[in-house]
Amino acid sequence: MLHQDWMHLALTQAQMAFEQGEVPIGAVVVHHGRVIAAAHNEREQKNDPTAHAEVLAIQRAAEVLGSWRLTEASLYVTLEPCPMCAGAIMQSRIKQVVYGAMDLKGGATGSVMNVLDYNLWNHKVDIVAGILEKECSDMLKLFFSRLR
Amino acid sequence: MLHQDWMHLALTQAQMAFEQGEVPIGAVVVHHGRVIAAAHNEREQKNDPTAHAEVLAIQRAAEVLGSWRLTEASLYVTLEPCPMCAGAIMQSRIKQVVYGAMDLKGGATGSVMNVLDYNLWNHKVDIVAGILEKECSDMLKLFFSRLR
Repeated sequence: MLHQDWMHLALTQAQMAFEQGEVPIGAVVVHHGRVIAAAHNEREQKNDPTAHAEVLAIQRAAEVLGSWRLTEASLYVTLEPCPMCAGAIMQSRIKQVVYGAMDLKGGATGSVMNVLDYNLWNHKVDIVAGILEKECSDMLKLFFSRLR
Repeated sequence: MLHQDWMHLALTQAQMAFEQGEVPIGAVVVHHGRVIAAAHNEREQKNDPTAHAEVLAIQRAAEVLGSWRLTEASLYVTLEPCPMCAGAIMQSRIKQVVYGAMDLKGGATGSVMNVLDYNLWNHKVDIVAGILEKECSDMLKLFFSRLR
């Protein structure tokens, strides 16, 4: 499978968030060639400030593997992670993050800051940006245009 | 109540983590003069890389208040927050963070980086450092000395 194929699955999650009135961001965790966790933003429904797509996907992946160390996993997410999610990625020792749209106002893997660049505990995360960027970005734009 | 009094409650949580073989870090959330949530690190038991004291305390506080916005709350934590937890603090709009020991290797509210200083969405978090610093630090030192 290509990055685009996994990102399509993350976009499907984002679409589910959209339909539920949540900011449309989706994520999947891929481990040894298969999806082991999928999630979308659920902040409003859960009344939980930590219920971002990435955090939920990481929690579910750890549950599936029975370990908090996701060293062999890749995370696909439709929007560049915020500081909390970039920190969660670091905590989980995920090896690769692939994201769609950049977040120029809050992105923490390069745009506003780069949490992963501090390389705490010598953990190195590979970052791939801009996969299906337009599709990921368009879904967010449509969501916010309807709120106005 | 003084900062020290609330920090003693966070230390009690850290002690519980210690007794369970978890890195001894504890946190409480104070809202309008009373504790509405308390938690300690549970990463190993839960096999969850996001199960830090601060994240769990924030999740519980949001559940108690029925809102993800903790704008009137203060978080007391025995160790300087990591990037994930500093990001969760920002996401929850907590107004004040009070911590005990500094984390020179991973602290994200001043030591290695300052996630809160980026002031995304114009949210300002007040930070108080060094409350019961020695007690908080000593508990961590004792824990790690026993692992060797």
